[in-house]
Amino acid sequence: MVSLRKKVEMERKNVTKMIAKPGQQEVLFIREFNAPREEVFRAWTTPSLYSRWAGPRHLKSCLKTFSPRTGGSYRILHLGADGINFITRGVYHEVTPPERIVATFENESDPDKGHPVLEVFNFDAISARLTRVTARLVFLTSTDRDGMLNAGIEQGMLESHERLEELLANSHVEDYLINVIDRDKRRQIHPRIVNP
Amino acid sequence: MVSLRKKVEMERKNVTKMIAKPGQQEVLFIREFNAPREEVFRAWTTPSLYSRWAGPRHLKSCLKTFSPRTGGSYRILHLGADGINFITRGVYHEVTPPERIVATFENESDPDKGHPVLEVFNFDAISARLTRVTARLVFLTSTDRDGMLNAGIEQGMLESHERLEELLANSHVEDYLINVIDRDKRRQIHPRIVNP
Repeated sequence: MVSLRKKVEMERKNVTKMIAKPGQQEVLFIREFNAPREEVFRAWTTPSLYSRWAGPRHLKSCLKTFSPRTGGSYRILHLGADGINFITRGVYHEVTPPERIVATFENESDPDKGHPVLEVFNFDAISARLTRVTARLVFLTSTDRDGMLNAGIEQGMLESHERLEELLANSHVEDYLINVIDRDKRRQIHPRIVNP
Repeated sequence: MVSLRKKVEMERKNVTKMIAKPGQQEVLFIREFNAPREEVFRAWTTPSLYSRWAGPRHLKSCLKTFSPRTGGSYRILHLGADGINFITRGVYHEVTPPERIVATFENESDPDKGHPVLEVFNFDAISARLTRVTARLVFLTSTDRDGMLNAGIEQGMLESHERLEELLANSHVEDYLINVIDRDKRRQIHPRIVNP
């Protein structure tokens, strides 16, 4: 039997709030998820989970490198059925479970090099089953920031969050997570994935 | 015999220009050095050279980790005769010789965690013996930026630049550099230094 409180939390409709003030060089994304903080953090740092939700729906994420630990790095190939194909990469300045990830980000496929983004993700436990994620993206210039806004970052972030919520809402999600992590430990599914 | 052009360049008095607009979350430092771009870049990425100029004069820099390559990291202990003792650290998002370094920075000794800085250093060859370095430091907030300004970042940067200029002005600097690099390759002087 599902308790009333749990039922209310499960039915809670979450929204992604974006804050991007004119002339500034940053964007904030704030979103709550109906899951414990540890579970949300795990979805951010487990390769077989991360690749299932990160990015817009029309792109498949192939993790070429994925080592979410302080000093680690990542490199992701984004594949679209419509022929879209680009690579994003960065390094992890800090990964402190289950509270914070600090990383850099750059579109490696952009011919204009030297435009990195600093990303800070803070994971706050609002309750035992409600987690708030605050993402602060800081750009080199407000022009870089506006370029990313025009490229549709808000829609991409919204779809990512919805996909993550669907993944977390799976009633067997905890069992699923444990099975996946165990399986990842036993064997390397994708030879190019670097496990954390 | 020293040519007139070389004499003029050697006597050129360089200054460090700082740009920090009110309410913004960034600081720019622009400085020219009387040396070829490759030489300036090498001083930024060779441990035995970097430790001799980076930081204000009253602090000794001990490189605990120093791996200036894309995906590498650094960790530096700053020691003062007056008992000052703190650690700074970060990761290298991109190191592209001799033109660009993109890294993160954080004062590990600060009890308030999660305040990284994104740093981009661009090395431009103005002439064969004159190099301009533009450092753009982007902070999480303007409050973080102002805190660093109040902590005396301008004086620290100025002293670093003067020390680097002194190192580069050594008439035997190229021979010195080659000797140091060869020696570093032959043996690990400091067991905790990771060579690039």
